[in-house]
Amino acid sequence: MSTTFLPYAERAARLTGSVIDSSTSLLASQPHDIVRFAMGSPADEAVPLDEFREISAATLDHSSFTYGATEGEPELLTGLVDYLVTTSEPTSRDRVTITSGGMQGLDLACKIFVDPGDLVIVESPTYTNGSATAASYRADLLEAPMDENGLIVEALPDLVERAGRTPKAIYVIPNFQNPSGTTLSAARRELLLDLAHRWNSVIIDDDPYGLLRFAGEDLPSFQSLSPSDPLLFSVRTFSKILAPGLRVGWVDTDPSIRQLVVNAKQSMDTCANVPAQQLVAEFIRRGGLSDHLTRIKALYLERKIAMVESLKRNLGDRITMTDPEGGFFLWVTLQGDDAATSTTALFETALAEGVAFIPGPALSPSGKFDDALRLCFATSDPDRIEEGVQRLTRALDAARAHR
Amino acid sequence: MSTTFLPYAERAARLTGSVIDSSTSLLASQPHDIVRFAMGSPADEAVPLDEFREISAATLDHSSFTYGATEGEPELLTGLVDYLVTTSEPTSRDRVTITSGGMQGLDLACKIFVDPGDLVIVESPTYTNGSATAASYRADLLEAPMDENGLIVEALPDLVERAGRTPKAIYVIPNFQNPSGTTLSAARRELLLDLAHRWNSVIIDDDPYGLLRFAGEDLPSFQSLSPSDPLLFSVRTFSKILAPGLRVGWVDTDPSIRQLVVNAKQSMDTCANVPAQQLVAEFIRRGGLSDHLTRIKALYLERKIAMVESLKRNLGDRITMTDPEGGFFLWVTLQGDDAATSTTALFETALAEGVAFIPGPALSPSGKFDDALRLCFATSDPDRIEEGVQRLTRALDAARAHR
Repeated sequence: MSTTFLPYAERAARLTGSVIDSSTSLLASQPHDIVRFAMGSPADEAVPLDEFREISAATLDHSSFTYGATEGEPELLTGLVDYLVTTSEPTSRDRVTITSGGMQGLDLACKIFVDPGDLVIVESPTYTNGSATAASYRADLLEAPMDENGLIVEALPDLVERAGRTPKAIYVIPNFQNPSGTTLSAARRELLLDLAHRWNSVIIDDDPYGLLRFAGEDLPSFQSLSPSDPLLFSVRTFSKILAPGLRVGWVDTDPSIRQLVVNAKQSMDTCANVPAQQLVAEFIRRGGLSDHLTRIKALYLERKIAMVESLKRNLGDRITMTDPEGGFFLWVTLQGDDAATSTTALFETALAEGVAFIPGPALSPSGKFDDALRLCFATSDPDRIEEGVQRLTRALDAARAHR
Repeated sequence: MSTTFLPYAERAARLTGSVIDSSTSLLASQPHDIVRFAMGSPADEAVPLDEFREISAATLDHSSFTYGATEGEPELLTGLVDYLVTTSEPTSRDRVTITSGGMQGLDLACKIFVDPGDLVIVESPTYTNGSATAASYRADLLEAPMDENGLIVEALPDLVERAGRTPKAIYVIPNFQNPSGTTLSAARRELLLDLAHRWNSVIIDDDPYGLLRFAGEDLPSFQSLSPSDPLLFSVRTFSKILAPGLRVGWVDTDPSIRQLVVNAKQSMDTCANVPAQQLVAEFIRRGGLSDHLTRIKALYLERKIAMVESLKRNLGDRITMTDPEGGFFLWVTLQGDDAATSTTALFETALAEGVAFIPGPALSPSGKFDDALRLCFATSDPDRIEEGVQRLTRALDAARAHR
């Protein structure tokens, strides 16, 4: 049979997919060795595989394989909340809902708050999987500039005035931002809360990396600055602190909207994978999370330093870069002659050389930053990082030679 | 701080949640013994726990804990397609996308095709988690009547004419329908395809139970009647044939829309839980799925017979019921004096007596069928089924006595 016109929803045109996620399949299909600076994947060494295997053997029983509660496995909710009260961001059981990874937290936030045509402010550059989710709800995205202290919040009132309407939501990654590596200053956090209250806008507070600070001091979280704030929708995940393959995250919201979160999740996937929730719950119950974080923060600091030094050694003043105090990513901007190199075009050359990264335009809804790229320092050890940076340097040399 | 008006999306009013899913938490919170006829959960005996534990120990490695491809783990896609070509519904690799359970398949179908205000035809009664997903996209739901041969497809043209517009989608569960247990006749399948083509409507073909036929003969699937049909969106799951806690399902769509499916999923949860995909892949690779299905079909046939006989013995002509040839559910309609008993009100009494079911109105978007209820025969063994039916009978007696 043939149908020339399929009855797509209007939003289908906004389902653009993710360059980041698609790189998983793309890299898997490459026959040669590739240093992986592209995906934001934890190091293999940072995943406690032996303990996960042991816990899995100890916890898998009939309860693992039947439907779980939509709000999350009770022992995970209890253990997570008990852990978080020991951190700079305490919470309570009536605020937390377990999700299928951080992405589902973003999907939930948009499902609950974003109507077609709503203005949503995003950082520029941003985690485009998050902005793509807002776009899938047909939001109008407004990219707001950043500097070394994160989103330039002071610039928002002018941007909003020019837009002619207030934003429904402001999507922000406050700590070691993906992709820039920058952290939103304390003063800007307070100002952003003031603006959100003035505009009645939701702050979608996406913080996958907050527990991975390896240098400097914690800044006050939005929740600590504005407790019990229904305009604050906080999205968290175990993907970066434990393992992304688990697809276990959580959202932390005012209790007044928690039932709506559960209702929305019931229309999406019933509940998160139960064995993975039990695994995380048991890992936390055994008390290992704090030591684990200490260990992997040291690992990531070493790798961040290795990447910064390797980039300086190999590329010198051909680039500038950010210097994050946590998280997974460095943001590199080409300088001088190299600034004319398209990082989108460079990707193919680099892949052939055996190194993968995310080109800048894939991290901006409007495709800005063709002179920049995101590098993940977390996945590879220092020797591999040096190898990868050398390959990247050869790709940049080749691009310059061909102009 | 106080905010009197939260900037909810319009769809938030349609995020009503699921009585079915919420029963998981409700039942877990009950201190006394309850016979579980409510959730559509496989029997513990139908879950190959020892083999799952053994496979889990054999497969968990670093690849289990990193990001997987959005379209699904390659070995699962390959194994699943290889298995399905041995069934009455063969498919190909370019049609299949792994999902986080069947519910995500329904969410994907609606995300891609359903705009606010679109007409979506649903069976009455229906699996209200599915209709709730369409409602979350602000569809206008049109409930269409059923008989012992499933959806009365012949009635649809009149319903559509009265509605004044053609449906964007028709949501149908063709085999051993949830909740009625009825199967759509072959003639009606052909007629439904004709109507979908005439109206340019998508058939959301939700078939969690098709591989669980324990009596009678397979009917031709929509796909076999209309191969390569882009208007056919088929939603499948391992929840009923293996285990729901895994949250692994798949959608089978025309290759022309598969990229859109992947793009949409990237805005939802990146990928399905990887260890669960590897577990299912290895279970299939070892060749155990066919024998497993043979074994559990015998188990479910025995339980269906036990429930039918127990209901006849205990309730006789106080009820009528359907007699499914597969799947998990019986649909019971109260007769005579008992027809005045509200099954919604009965639920509390029955819970106190120690038996849980789903009241009819929870299986209709408009709350019809207050004289009916859904019973899952799959979860409990014959002795427990008898115990549960006796408790249900006592609850009905009490309800009648109190009128």
